[in-house]
Amino acid sequence: MFEQNPYSKLISNYIQQAEFPNEPRELYDPIRYILSLAGKRIRPMLVLMSARLFGEQDMSKALPASAAIEYFHNFSLIHDDIMDNAPLRRGKDTVHEKWNNNVAILSGDGLLVKAYQELGKSPKEHIAELLTVFNQVAIEVCEGQQLDMDFEKQLEVREEDYLRMIKLKTSVLLGGALQMGAILANATKEQQDLIYGFGVNLGIAFQLQDDFLDVYGDPSSFGKQVGGDILANKKTILHIHTQHLAKDADQEEFQLLIQDSNISNEDKVNRMKNLYAKLNVDQYAEGVKQRYMHLAYEQLSQLNVDATRKEELFALADMLMHRAK
Amino acid sequence: MFEQNPYSKLISNYIQQAEFPNEPRELYDPIRYILSLAGKRIRPMLVLMSARLFGEQDMSKALPASAAIEYFHNFSLIHDDIMDNAPLRRGKDTVHEKWNNNVAILSGDGLLVKAYQELGKSPKEHIAELLTVFNQVAIEVCEGQQLDMDFEKQLEVREEDYLRMIKLKTSVLLGGALQMGAILANATKEQQDLIYGFGVNLGIAFQLQDDFLDVYGDPSSFGKQVGGDILANKKTILHIHTQHLAKDADQEEFQLLIQDSNISNEDKVNRMKNLYAKLNVDQYAEGVKQRYMHLAYEQLSQLNVDATRKEELFALADMLMHRAK
Repeated sequence: MFEQNPYSKLISNYIQQAEFPNEPRELYDPIRYILSLAGKRIRPMLVLMSARLFGEQDMSKALPASAAIEYFHNFSLIHDDIMDNAPLRRGKDTVHEKWNNNVAILSGDGLLVKAYQELGKSPKEHIAELLTVFNQVAIEVCEGQQLDMDFEKQLEVREEDYLRMIKLKTSVLLGGALQMGAILANATKEQQDLIYGFGVNLGIAFQLQDDFLDVYGDPSSFGKQVGGDILANKKTILHIHTQHLAKDADQEEFQLLIQDSNISNEDKVNRMKNLYAKLNVDQYAEGVKQRYMHLAYEQLSQLNVDATRKEELFALADMLMHRAK
Repeated sequence: MFEQNPYSKLISNYIQQAEFPNEPRELYDPIRYILSLAGKRIRPMLVLMSARLFGEQDMSKALPASAAIEYFHNFSLIHDDIMDNAPLRRGKDTVHEKWNNNVAILSGDGLLVKAYQELGKSPKEHIAELLTVFNQVAIEVCEGQQLDMDFEKQLEVREEDYLRMIKLKTSVLLGGALQMGAILANATKEQQDLIYGFGVNLGIAFQLQDDFLDVYGDPSSFGKQVGGDILANKKTILHIHTQHLAKDADQEEFQLLIQDSNISNEDKVNRMKNLYAKLNVDQYAEGVKQRYMHLAYEQLSQLNVDATRKEELFALADMLMHRAK
């Protein structure tokens, strides 16, 4: 659906036409490389969709801001991958693997500046307001990444802290992308807040679903190793709620699974899934996800625009939330 | 002179009043730390001086942009220190030493975003133009840092490439700071270009002088190990021009000094200084510096503002160029 849609094409063309200097090679080659590993480009698409939702027909006005969002996202991937020591991104070598850490630090910095450069190509009357929203999102994404790293070192994470972390690390960027589209279409502050809220809540629901699919997803369509989070003791909503609920023998089993490195991978995944089932943690997580999903849809419904215009955002949300199930 | 001056006080007060959240600690503590190791704050001062030069009396209009420049500078120090593996900065532990590389990467990112946040607090009518100048400077500083790292791996660097590198890595930020002050005071594009040129040429002269003082400076007032660049085989203007000029036995001596690790530090510095003297490389470097100095003063002279207003910028330039001689 999203490979051939008109927004996606506009964005790909715009980004492909962006010219980066050839020199210095180790600054610009990694930028070209990460942008060539195009993901689904959902974030920049949200800018365009939101601008159109609020009545802007001329997508060229929103393309720079949409590229800014995509560049920012890719900057954060380059730096997060260093911090997480990740070897692969979208099935290819990460920048710090293909080059080295210094190259990844500096080319990430360069890409962040390029994001702001794109933002500055927006219609002049909107730049100050766009910059405010973009900066707020950017600093929150940094906060989210720091919380995520902090949580790795903690023995226990509270559900509310986890929800705050995923909101900052991944969801505010979706909300901000939508709000920027709204700004470009001269939407009121009230409408901006609603569409921002839609994006944030959709993002949280999406991340919770990601936790769920890591355990229960179909390996062929999910595209990751099923149970990877369990094996890595990642503090997902399932992990956090299990730790919170489990008493006595169940808590012992939980701690054993986390700490005992002699348990085989298969055993660890199966026994953890049994624990989830026994404590109904899977249903609980589904419930939390539904709550955010519901909030998102409600905010989109409340928007004061013609219902037919909302359809493509509802469709996008449906697509995101029913993927790989 | 610059500790008690009114600009410096305004800037220190403004930056000290900036409130960073307490949490996440590992994101914001390093930002507070690097900003507390206040340097001479020359860059943010340039924003204010330039705004006043062009007739803006209300410094509060220029303070956010001046903080943006100072934050950007400190962001670049945090990340450069990781890349250069530097243990000390202004006599204290660097951020990656005091914490670790991940903390330094992310808090640097956060500080760069904070720089843009400050920029966004400028008077609204100037934000788009300030953003354009700031972005251009920022990407050029990244290019300069990459060239600097590239040159370390090269056997020989051409003088023109070296001059371009120091221009990008350090001088455009001085020029950009001054241009931003000019923008805030509604100076014409022609006047902006002159003051930008003054800053860039002054910056190049300053960096060339830094190369010179590393060898010929008074150790008590220079504050670094004299001859440190020679010991590190750093490709300064002196190194580059010696390599370019030296023939036969002189070139052999030069290569020996660079490659033979059995030569004592004292010997290496003295023999390299002899080579510089024999080839008149010290005078040559002084001449190149004078050329840029002259260019800078000429551009400042050409400015179409009352001569008395230029005095404090001439004084700053004099102070910078006569330091520690």
